[in-house]
Amino acid sequence: MSQPNPTIGEPHDYHAIARRITDMALADGRSYGMLHQFCTTIGHRLSGSPQAAQAVEWGRQAMIESGLERVHLQPVLVPHWERGGAETVILIADGKAEQLRGLALGGSVATPPEGITAGVIEVRSIAEVAGLGERARGNIIFFNRPMDPKLINTFDAYSGAVDQRVNGPVAAARAGAVAVLVRSITTAMDTIPHTGMLRYNDSVTKIPAVAISTVDAEHLSQTLRHHPNACVTIKTNCRTLPDAESHNVIGQLTGTEKPDETVVIGGHLDSWDVGHGAHDDGAGCVQAIEALRLLKALGLRPKRTIRAVLWMNEENGLRGGIAYADSVTKHGPRHIAAIESDRGGFAPRGFYVEADMPTVERVARWAEYFRNMGAERFVYGGGGADIGPLKAHGVLNIGLNVESHRYFDYHHAASDTFAQVNRRELELGAAALALLAWLIAEEGL
Amino acid sequence: MSQPNPTIGEPHDYHAIARRITDMALADGRSYGMLHQFCTTIGHRLSGSPQAAQAVEWGRQAMIESGLERVHLQPVLVPHWERGGAETVILIADGKAEQLRGLALGGSVATPPEGITAGVIEVRSIAEVAGLGERARGNIIFFNRPMDPKLINTFDAYSGAVDQRVNGPVAAARAGAVAVLVRSITTAMDTIPHTGMLRYNDSVTKIPAVAISTVDAEHLSQTLRHHPNACVTIKTNCRTLPDAESHNVIGQLTGTEKPDETVVIGGHLDSWDVGHGAHDDGAGCVQAIEALRLLKALGLRPKRTIRAVLWMNEENGLRGGIAYADSVTKHGPRHIAAIESDRGGFAPRGFYVEADMPTVERVARWAEYFRNMGAERFVYGGGGADIGPLKAHGVLNIGLNVESHRYFDYHHAASDTFAQVNRRELELGAAALALLAWLIAEEGL
Repeated sequence: MSQPNPTIGEPHDYHAIARRITDMALADGRSYGMLHQFCTTIGHRLSGSPQAAQAVEWGRQAMIESGLERVHLQPVLVPHWERGGAETVILIADGKAEQLRGLALGGSVATPPEGITAGVIEVRSIAEVAGLGERARGNIIFFNRPMDPKLINTFDAYSGAVDQRVNGPVAAARAGAVAVLVRSITTAMDTIPHTGMLRYNDSVTKIPAVAISTVDAEHLSQTLRHHPNACVTIKTNCRTLPDAESHNVIGQLTGTEKPDETVVIGGHLDSWDVGHGAHDDGAGCVQAIEALRLLKALGLRPKRTIRAVLWMNEENGLRGGIAYADSVTKHGPRHIAAIESDRGGFAPRGFYVEADMPTVERVARWAEYFRNMGAERFVYGGGGADIGPLKAHGVLNIGLNVESHRYFDYHHAASDTFAQVNRRELELGAAALALLAWLIAEEGL
Repeated sequence: MSQPNPTIGEPHDYHAIARRITDMALADGRSYGMLHQFCTTIGHRLSGSPQAAQAVEWGRQAMIESGLERVHLQPVLVPHWERGGAETVILIADGKAEQLRGLALGGSVATPPEGITAGVIEVRSIAEVAGLGERARGNIIFFNRPMDPKLINTFDAYSGAVDQRVNGPVAAARAGAVAVLVRSITTAMDTIPHTGMLRYNDSVTKIPAVAISTVDAEHLSQTLRHHPNACVTIKTNCRTLPDAESHNVIGQLTGTEKPDETVVIGGHLDSWDVGHGAHDDGAGCVQAIEALRLLKALGLRPKRTIRAVLWMNEENGLRGGIAYADSVTKHGPRHIAAIESDRGGFAPRGFYVEADMPTVERVARWAEYFRNMGAERFVYGGGGADIGPLKAHGVLNIGLNVESHRYFDYHHAASDTFAQVNRRELELGAAALALLAWLIAEEGL
């Protein structure tokens, strides 16, 4: 690595540069104001919705106002699913009916207008469904395995639970079930349901699937223990429309020496259709734009190009990430690294580097510059969904690592609002992104 | 240090013990439930108030229910200040009157019933007041220096700003001012005023002092720029009553080998008279109780005694901390270390050790056991106000270090409520306290 130059302000005095970036982010950062405007004027923005179209235009304007160069839109055809009218989940047990708080999973089919009423079989895993044999037939399968609270990193706990939501509906349909209920994949014990993508298989009957809040999942489980013959009526009103035209939003600071070598940073512009999508992933979008604004405002013109991309359709298709990787592979410029912020706008702790250990260690040699902001943990881990398609083309994937305890309290839920974002934490994340992008743009990999 | 014993469950396999403590805290921790009950049934609890008396009894019961031993109360005589009716701050400029959001500082005297109306002189520091000369006389001094946003650790920024609130009133009175307004010492830009202690001097006229919200401070500053002759009417209704009887709450796990050597952990039971005092310092109280419950529930009986203390009157007198230090100095048992949690119930990052570097390093040799929970930063720093009086008696002071970005958004304000506390972050803090107390109790210092 380059030795830090002791003259403050010299391009390779990375301690001084880290300090300047951090100071400006904390004293005069714009991420928080940008996110406030984004959340309060547009709010949630599922792919294909009018709000998603507004978000594209918002992103374009925000990049222009932040002084980014070559701001442009990249067309992407995205899935277009609509929730329709509010879903209902009614539990009928012991002669009483009560409403559970539910939210259809993204991509779910509709029930018949009168809904589906059936008995409920609770399971803790997809494997258990196969073991049910004929018992599953005609019933509703209720996946009720909580996230493992003992895992310090809540993303690990999410990974360990989310298969129920993603693959549960197909597994249940294969067993002859008529619908699926899923315990919300969240660390919170509350009454707010959390949605998220399910994956159908065209050769298996598509059955409706709804997440219920953790409090309601506990209640349903208790009820089934005392009243095994309780039944549930589920109504969903979802529909899938033809694919819609949408866009990734792209802007950059062009490199002075190697403009064709590019470091890309970004987050995803779409969100689920509840709350503000503030942490997921409004935060990553504003941080990517702000990272470039910070560098420009500080007069830090990179050797290599640093590009910000707001990807469309991470939540239910990844079409933006795929289209982006396709286009840069075919038409260049050459990408050397991609850094995604999609773990919420919380206090940055470091970076996940998705590579072999020598590469992790090569990136980790810069950790010392991140110590002051508390973001010195450089470890092996996943970069991010949107940048995943770039991996196949040899682009190093890196993910911003943040304090993760709160993220899944809000993830894919009505509670993911601007109010849950802390200004300092959000701005520091932008500083961390800016600094790592700068280091890679200056030093290469 | 002892070498970790590879047999899981052996008393010196500290990695395994760290894991067991952390697992139980995250999967079955009781801090969050305790804090919920504390905040919602009692709420804020300023020294001398009926709620403070309820808090003492609550603490005693909580310790008994958590299985602590020798639970008892230690009498403490505390200051008894009351806000009285709501304060008002009216800005009159350009023929218009408008209310600013204010909160009298703790200890402030009352204004006359008709209030005090005077011109306003804005300053950024106490030093500036001395430079005003005769201009200050008969006016209200408005201290308006913000916390430095560039400091990563918000406690450093607090230290750099709080002199305005603590010592501003005496400095202003010395210069002939009739009252003081102080910009709330907070990282938030909002409409919520933050109170806190002021320090009078018996030889200087006591003038009333009120904090105003940061939004109002900015507005007042702007107004004064355009209308230097604007004036403000301040009304406060505070009074100081005779000292009141109160208590520290004490419980312990008695050591098996050296019961007379004690490690004390704790937080303070009192709070300001707004909000819930959830982060400040309900969090520290429940964490101290929970730390001992965790050890006991895991069958970890310490060699030395570990004692939990809920100190009374940290906010406006420190009488509990002083009384505690006096009593243990006179009557024992010998205390070897004191660990305080009073920086909010946020994600633990490590510990501040208030000692010379060899001692810091001696404690830091255990940092590896805290890495998994993200609390491996062991650095020099202040332990805590309540344990400060023990320092004079050679007791090592240690403070739980947490992610600090959010703390001063809520500190001493109506916004310091249970809703701002994250369950996992709070419980992990209890785990960190339990583990360090265990290590010291096993290994000594």
